[in-house]
Amino acid sequence: MLDMNLDFQKSDGLITAIIQDFASGRVLMVGYMNEEAFRATVKTGFVTFYSRSRQKLWLKGESSGHRLVVKEISTDCDADALLVKVDSLGPGVCHEGYESCFFRRLEDDGQWKVTEERTYDPNAVYGGKA
Amino acid sequence: MLDMNLDFQKSDGLITAIIQDFASGRVLMVGYMNEEAFRATVKTGFVTFYSRSRQKLWLKGESSGHRLVVKEISTDCDADALLVKVDSLGPGVCHEGYESCFFRRLEDDGQWKVTEERTYDPNAVYGGKA
Repeated sequence: MLDMNLDFQKSDGLITAIIQDFASGRVLMVGYMNEEAFRATVKTGFVTFYSRSRQKLWLKGESSGHRLVVKEISTDCDADALLVKVDSLGPGVCHEGYESCFFRRLEDDGQWKVTEERTYDPNAVYGGKA
Repeated sequence: MLDMNLDFQKSDGLITAIIQDFASGRVLMVGYMNEEAFRATVKTGFVTFYSRSRQKLWLKGESSGHRLVVKEISTDCDADALLVKVDSLGPGVCHEGYESCFFRRLEDDGQWKVTEERTYDPNAVYGGKA
């Protein structure tokens, strides 16, 4: 029944899901969920996205083991976005080896600059698949 | 030049922009930007979205005065989303009168529940337009 209140129609069956670290408040990544992914996330307690490129459900951490444990889910006024607070099982969520996917900052000169160190070696985790 | 590094093509010319309070770390809202909105945001220092419903640029706070002052902009590994940290000029960003648009939380019974008080009267600010 809970799905009924979310607006999956506005963007081709998908809603935006912002993933935020429950403890630190850092925004870790953003993904998309269809109704099935949302149901799976609620039912299993692990964040499950819908992969737009692979066009199928994507249990985050399926291959890396870095799953995201759901602590709290909020929705916004339009009911077309979710804020999911999580405990992150692992050193980082980004397939490039960083804690957060948002590891590049816009500098005054108009360039994007990496402003932090990797927290793990993505080749060791993903075996070169990422 | 800075626009060249963002991927506006994946979602019909739009990228997702997560707005986070710079001081508290609270996620306030999520919106969308086209290239023009992104340029305006960087140039003016005030968050400017592209309104999907009105199909035009939307300077957040244009009518309410509750503008969002840009403190920091990051992009993600895919360069198709932004994290914008802001100082919020006003008691809240949500047109329904809340500090954050994410004011409803999913309860164990599967219902969305409002878990906080309004920070301002939206009718007084928007004059019934919202």
